[in-house]
Amino acid sequence: MNVKEVESAAARLKYIVHHTPINSSRTFSQMSGAELFVKCENLQKTGSFKVRGAYNKLAKMSESAEVTSVVSSSAGNHAQGVAYAANALQMEASIVMPRSTPIAKVAATGGYGAKVVLHGDCYDDAYQKAVEIQQETGAVFVHPFDDEDVITGQGTVALEIFQDIPTVDAVLIPAGGGGLLAGMAFYIKQINPRVKVIGVQAQGADAIVQSFQAKAHRFTETSVTIADGISVKVPGKITTELINRYVDEMITVTDEEIAEAILLLLERTKMLVEPAGAVSLAAAIHKKTNLEGKRAVSVLSGGNIDVSFIHKIVEKGLITRGRQLKFGTVMLDIPGSLQRFSGIVAGCGANIIMVQYDRLHADLRLNEAILHIVCEVSGTKHGQDVIRQLEHNGYKVFLE
Amino acid sequence: MNVKEVESAAARLKYIVHHTPINSSRTFSQMSGAELFVKCENLQKTGSFKVRGAYNKLAKMSESAEVTSVVSSSAGNHAQGVAYAANALQMEASIVMPRSTPIAKVAATGGYGAKVVLHGDCYDDAYQKAVEIQQETGAVFVHPFDDEDVITGQGTVALEIFQDIPTVDAVLIPAGGGGLLAGMAFYIKQINPRVKVIGVQAQGADAIVQSFQAKAHRFTETSVTIADGISVKVPGKITTELINRYVDEMITVTDEEIAEAILLLLERTKMLVEPAGAVSLAAAIHKKTNLEGKRAVSVLSGGNIDVSFIHKIVEKGLITRGRQLKFGTVMLDIPGSLQRFSGIVAGCGANIIMVQYDRLHADLRLNEAILHIVCEVSGTKHGQDVIRQLEHNGYKVFLE
Repeated sequence: MNVKEVESAAARLKYIVHHTPINSSRTFSQMSGAELFVKCENLQKTGSFKVRGAYNKLAKMSESAEVTSVVSSSAGNHAQGVAYAANALQMEASIVMPRSTPIAKVAATGGYGAKVVLHGDCYDDAYQKAVEIQQETGAVFVHPFDDEDVITGQGTVALEIFQDIPTVDAVLIPAGGGGLLAGMAFYIKQINPRVKVIGVQAQGADAIVQSFQAKAHRFTETSVTIADGISVKVPGKITTELINRYVDEMITVTDEEIAEAILLLLERTKMLVEPAGAVSLAAAIHKKTNLEGKRAVSVLSGGNIDVSFIHKIVEKGLITRGRQLKFGTVMLDIPGSLQRFSGIVAGCGANIIMVQYDRLHADLRLNEAILHIVCEVSGTKHGQDVIRQLEHNGYKVFLE
Repeated sequence: MNVKEVESAAARLKYIVHHTPINSSRTFSQMSGAELFVKCENLQKTGSFKVRGAYNKLAKMSESAEVTSVVSSSAGNHAQGVAYAANALQMEASIVMPRSTPIAKVAATGGYGAKVVLHGDCYDDAYQKAVEIQQETGAVFVHPFDDEDVITGQGTVALEIFQDIPTVDAVLIPAGGGGLLAGMAFYIKQINPRVKVIGVQAQGADAIVQSFQAKAHRFTETSVTIADGISVKVPGKITTELINRYVDEMITVTDEEIAEAILLLLERTKMLVEPAGAVSLAAAIHKKTNLEGKRAVSVLSGGNIDVSFIHKIVEKGLITRGRQLKFGTVMLDIPGSLQRFSGIVAGCGANIIMVQYDRLHADLRLNEAILHIVCEVSGTKHGQDVIRQLEHNGYKVFLE
């Protein structure tokens, strides 16, 4: 691998993918202590950086030999990247996805003209099927990360960062299989070894962190994280070698920190970022590494997040921000009780969105019931006002 | 008003606000029949176009007289626009907001250095208080839309569209008070009368549509829409006159169409847009006007949407996309019943997220219970599979 190859990849990609925007954020700068920029690969074609590596691989192959069909297996961004790249090069693509893949992802992949094969219950089943198809048809298999041409393709993200922020001091990069981190770290250190390269993984899927510490290739038995895009047990061999050589620091973030970063990105930048795409920002704003006074870039690697997952993130955010107040209270089990209670809540300007009665609790007298309540309030202080007002009117409130 | 004033406004705004991106979208082009672009004022400083008008007003005043303090009333984007503009010009700003304003908006406005006064239960109370403050302090009052300098400031959005897409055929613009629509329509028709200007309102707040049809200034008794940013009963007099003169067509969209557009924007463009900001795209993709073969720009006017509202939009989307399956079924009220039932559901790969028992239903026999169930499924077809499998096992399923 050499610098020239990353630059050739950038030339190949020029009219195929976006040179994505890089934005400054006052809020995130304040939280991280750095002058913090975000590199928006969530706004990339297909919704993630993966299309860079896939296209570079296919385009480079087609320069030296005739390639008419490709095959790959993925439940995620690589599927869409390969489908898009094959379409741009007028190749046939077969993508094997596990049967449990959300319909939106299947539709997006098919929308780029790829033939989607739904097979098996998990990624490993889909991978086996892809290998079968490759052996039957002679199609070229495109690995999601452990391939030099894929890695150099991902490295073009770093090239764009140097173009836009030549005075950058530090770059934070997500890592799962390691393709993006390896490609970017390699290029950054060739161009300017002074720039600090920080890799970020999810705490529950930290094979690269372990490999980095051991200076060897390590894998984990399990990978448990909301960041499905970087939930990888066995990182690449080529990628691990590059990472162990060129990365300065590897750190992890928790699922809670990732969820908080996604919600902040939505609220402050009006952008949707998937969990794997938000780990580098989560690391910066939770000060997992010292960025004080540095000019730093956090790579938001993708934006393909499922609707039901947005729902969970936002729901959690409502509770942590004190916007949903959950509590129980005991009241007399007689006509008029609910009216009196709900009158007090309404008087506080809070909106009741759930009421559940429990008459079977062991501690209750026969004429009592427990009411479980969820209210919308404008924030923590408003919630406290509601509780104070209820207590003032004789209700015993226990938070749930 | 003349073209020069819009251009002077653009010069004033140059280093203060963003020249916002304008993006093409294949999905939205296919849905609308146009070659459709979106103008991203949701990515503007303060999260909406309102800062343009507010800054132009304050900057222009400060060119001819000394202005040290300003006052305004708003529960929305105008508040943040005035606060940001005053801060940039080192003026003191007092913003009166209704007490019910979500904490996030209060914090954002205060974050730009404005003094936030919480007063009254609705906008009218806050407005009265702002007038009081103006009379007591001599501060300058900044109207959210019915002011020529505010209107010319908003017109700069049209100027940027001409810079980026000089061959534009049609522009779709949201309207509430009418400042953005009036300013843009005026400028567009001076520069190129061939370009079609289409104003879009929410069906439940259509005072400008009525005014346009009557060629007079009309108001509505009520305004009921999820698009709070354009929920206006009495549009401006200056704005209505300009709109009646320069706009080609006024159309409306329903709340359901707005909600669908917000969700599509999130999924396809990874961008968060507020309801008022999504009406122009909703109109285009629901073909409320004929854009076939045209090069059209839809203005996404803002992105300031409350977390609890995102939650509702996404929840609704999960149901319309068939991702949440709600149904009831009757089962025997004996040990093991739930295990058998949930085993079948799990066998289909569906995830149960709510179970409620009802033993009190009039039609039930003594040994029966109704179970109300909510499941996560991957789409409509998967939901149908779950129901078929339950029916095959003897359960009677009724959708809820």
